[in-house]
Amino acid sequence: MQYVDGLECSEFDREVFTELREGGLSCVTVTCGYWGDALESLDSLAAWRDLERQNSDLIGIARTTADIERLAAGDRTAILLGFQNSSFLSGRIRFVEFFADLGVRVAQLTYNIQNDVGGSCYETTDSGLTRFGREVVAEMNRVGMVIDLSHVGERTSLEAIGHSTKPVAVTHANPASLVPHPRNKSDEVLKELAARGGMLGVSGYRNISGPYAESIDRWAEMVARTVDLIGIDHVGIGTDLGRKVTFEHLQWMRQGRWSKQPQYGAGSAANPGKQPPLPWFPDTRAFPAKEEALRRHGFDEKSVAAVMGENWMRFYREVLPAEDHANAARREE
Amino acid sequence: MQYVDGLECSEFDREVFTELREGGLSCVTVTCGYWGDALESLDSLAAWRDLERQNSDLIGIARTTADIERLAAGDRTAILLGFQNSSFLSGRIRFVEFFADLGVRVAQLTYNIQNDVGGSCYETTDSGLTRFGREVVAEMNRVGMVIDLSHVGERTSLEAIGHSTKPVAVTHANPASLVPHPRNKSDEVLKELAARGGMLGVSGYRNISGPYAESIDRWAEMVARTVDLIGIDHVGIGTDLGRKVTFEHLQWMRQGRWSKQPQYGAGSAANPGKQPPLPWFPDTRAFPAKEEALRRHGFDEKSVAAVMGENWMRFYREVLPAEDHANAARREE
Repeated sequence: MQYVDGLECSEFDREVFTELREGGLSCVTVTCGYWGDALESLDSLAAWRDLERQNSDLIGIARTTADIERLAAGDRTAILLGFQNSSFLSGRIRFVEFFADLGVRVAQLTYNIQNDVGGSCYETTDSGLTRFGREVVAEMNRVGMVIDLSHVGERTSLEAIGHSTKPVAVTHANPASLVPHPRNKSDEVLKELAARGGMLGVSGYRNISGPYAESIDRWAEMVARTVDLIGIDHVGIGTDLGRKVTFEHLQWMRQGRWSKQPQYGAGSAANPGKQPPLPWFPDTRAFPAKEEALRRHGFDEKSVAAVMGENWMRFYREVLPAEDHANAARREE
Repeated sequence: MQYVDGLECSEFDREVFTELREGGLSCVTVTCGYWGDALESLDSLAAWRDLERQNSDLIGIARTTADIERLAAGDRTAILLGFQNSSFLSGRIRFVEFFADLGVRVAQLTYNIQNDVGGSCYETTDSGLTRFGREVVAEMNRVGMVIDLSHVGERTSLEAIGHSTKPVAVTHANPASLVPHPRNKSDEVLKELAARGGMLGVSGYRNISGPYAESIDRWAEMVARTVDLIGIDHVGIGTDLGRKVTFEHLQWMRQGRWSKQPQYGAGSAANPGKQPPLPWFPDTRAFPAKEEALRRHGFDEKSVAAVMGENWMRFYREVLPAEDHANAARREE
């Protein structure tokens, strides 16, 4: 069975890559940055190329769905390079293509604050998708970069879904109708997303999963209720797993360089430290337990496979570039 | 006959591209920057991609020798993207690979002042190739980027030639034994360059050509004397043509951001304006006249073809990456 994790924010090293292998992951989208500008983001990609060279027996950076399949068939985990913000563009529309040429395949339009592309889920007033944002969405469509709306505001999300000519993703969030939280997604957003072939990666992250984080069977119940809401074809997994994320990493996520104080987002000022890992999902070695929990909940075999990875793979086939070729997207313009 | 120009610093637009076509140029290396850091250099590459899109009937950006041949066969001029400085790296060794992935194929180690890679031809003391410089040379070898020594100092040039595992180029200069000038190259440098399969692009630029700039036949004589010095296989053309270069462009080349006053390099403080074009080489439409001048001087047909472009093509086949694939170089490491 193909296991795909739609989003992790782990600090990867050889040990964490080994866990990916032991968990049987075919593909995981990693977080190359939250707040970095173009230069910092290139540095982050450079570090990823070094990680790939040093761990080429365990992982490989994938540029196409065929790459994912080839890597998985060779017992390696395919890495999709992603950013949780569009700040890597440094405001340049042409850098969408450059970063795609360098292998970036997933980008969230905003992280936790408004930017030049649109509004975040924590904004009191969501501007909607800006004029630059519309150009970014069109360019991401053209080069085959996944548009991620996980931390994006309601209005900006709806406008991005409407403006995109390809399906888009919420890589790591849950339905707000199940767990009310600004980071979770309204039924309207999720239904629009699904109607256009998009994907939701159901998370287990405690603060946005509420009672469904209590056990793996409660989590499976949340998956089932999400499937009831938007259909089996549009639900996958996005763990938001943060292996080896330290308090310093958390503080950087929370305040970047934009705030003098930490801004807790989905976290809590009363409890600012790193949350203990979920006892039923300490790391990716527990992926097979998710498969079992879905089966136990009553999902049939086809549905289990769909949620565990097949739905993401179908989505990637539609969205990622067909050719493993930096020039391909450019020449199609 | 294939015409190749090893280096131009023109400000390209549709008119200048049209001149390339009318001159019958198969390939020209363009200057994407003199002093820019990584971000500015990406902006410059972005502008080149736009130029390519807007003029795809006349030119195309080449990544391999096969690209050059394909473009030339289709009556388009192949553009090799180059920088006249290694400042585009912003001190990052990993950016050699990134810029290669984005299509850069030629880089001069230093422009007119010392940098982190080595010394320039105008330095009173040339440091030689630095430790970073040795890493840059090795990385340029690996990814298939032409190492250009035109403005590089004597010691740094000799050390770069010695350290490089592939042939290197002086894309635009003349022998100092024919025309004494700091920008021209000692016999020692040129003979070491040739002994390792390298190339010299003979320039016609007035200040470094002295009496050989007086007429196209004097220029052909300089080519002949250069061939006597280093052999027919190592001599090509590097015009250093600056079509549409304005006084403001010249001032930027001269002082960048490093000097409060213009530093004239190969120019002259007494005569700071843009030099009038050579009457016998106003633009690239005069390339066929160079072919005729070489023949008139007594070069046989094979030698004419070698100097006009075949030698550059052989050099590119040895140095540029074999595959038109951003990942190819990376995977070979």
